[in-house]
Amino acid sequence: MSATGFAGFPTMGGWDMSRKRIGVVLSGCGNRDGAEIHESVLTLYFLDRAGAEAVCMAPDVPQRMVLNYLTGKPSGESRNVLLESARIARGKIQELSQVKAEQLDGLILPGGSGAALNLSSYGVDGPKGQVNPALAALLTAMHRGKKPIGAICISPAVVAMVFAGQGIHLTLGPDPDDARALQSMGQQAAVTQVESIVVDETHNVISTAAYMCAASVAEVGVGIEKLVAEVLKRA
Amino acid sequence: MSATGFAGFPTMGGWDMSRKRIGVVLSGCGNRDGAEIHESVLTLYFLDRAGAEAVCMAPDVPQRMVLNYLTGKPSGESRNVLLESARIARGKIQELSQVKAEQLDGLILPGGSGAALNLSSYGVDGPKGQVNPALAALLTAMHRGKKPIGAICISPAVVAMVFAGQGIHLTLGPDPDDARALQSMGQQAAVTQVESIVVDETHNVISTAAYMCAASVAEVGVGIEKLVAEVLKRA
Repeated sequence: MSATGFAGFPTMGGWDMSRKRIGVVLSGCGNRDGAEIHESVLTLYFLDRAGAEAVCMAPDVPQRMVLNYLTGKPSGESRNVLLESARIARGKIQELSQVKAEQLDGLILPGGSGAALNLSSYGVDGPKGQVNPALAALLTAMHRGKKPIGAICISPAVVAMVFAGQGIHLTLGPDPDDARALQSMGQQAAVTQVESIVVDETHNVISTAAYMCAASVAEVGVGIEKLVAEVLKRA
Repeated sequence: MSATGFAGFPTMGGWDMSRKRIGVVLSGCGNRDGAEIHESVLTLYFLDRAGAEAVCMAPDVPQRMVLNYLTGKPSGESRNVLLESARIARGKIQELSQVKAEQLDGLILPGGSGAALNLSSYGVDGPKGQVNPALAALLTAMHRGKKPIGAICISPAVVAMVFAGQGIHLTLGPDPDDARALQSMGQQAAVTQVESIVVDETHNVISTAAYMCAASVAEVGVGIEKLVAEVLKRA
């Protein structure tokens, strides 16, 4: 971990230690059955613009369902979460269980129904649902390492399940029912609008509601830009 | 066309005439077999941030092929361009042939292999390829109406085919072979880097190379932000 690279830059396992490395957990490709595409791309955009390196990852599991985005009904297809996520990452993606907390300075979970369907069973089972074991392990290791975790849109529900009962300040947006769901998992829920972020100083968790609000892509960008900046400040 | 809406806003066919309406032509969902996702989302983001309304559209045709983004080989699946594009548009999308130039103040074509495979046959047939007839008709009508056309990444090749021989200033990025391809279609080719746009004042066509360059998402954003601003200035 103290090796110095050819050009004098500190290196570790071949990557550039001069840039902050932020994991980005994807869950498919599409807001209703996978990762929310706008939130995911804006996360990558703001990370890159700030000079950080995004480390995209997704689990190698089947999607819980595939939707026809015009009819709103299941299409009957089978798709793989890692392969669909690879579209957003332009092929530069790792299987989630292969990524270790020691390789990262922070972790961000964009939203989309995939967070509640493919990364967890929150969308089916509610607050008593399960989280993908590799993701739960990574979140736990990041938390133990005091590294910042950013959660966008519905993803704070995933964080709430993994750290049940820890009283983390989180937001799922303006809907009181969503706030109550966070409370039922033992968290402190903030009711927020799209341009806000909620920062839990103690637990080093930052959340923003994004498309949990009826918002436009530029409005969603305001919250995500703030969240990315806050994660990087703490990374 | 002179009706006034309930709240005093001028309306036309139900839309808000106070915002500029810019068509965004999608070609699937993924840089290697559809619309380039980053370029598409950043186009929507910068349009919305500038107060314009994006009118997403795509043709209702099968994708020429579907790629596995980890192996780089065809997956053997069949997918529909309109349905996959709808993922980027969050379901708010029209079939391309249903959109008329009179409804738009400008038109932008993001890139991705879909422009060369699903909107045209450029990726298979080169400069002698065909363009989707509805797209060719829309581009021609926009041009006749002196409305601005923006083309990103590989999409200037589509514009070059539709307006063959018209000597439009266009860019396909830094590769001299790509510049020669534009010249073979009777256009004036500029060799550019990612942060540049090329403005053809006479034909009202703006282009930027985006991921035709080996660039990061923030670098691509620089050119697209400029292109969107230039299209809106002329819309």
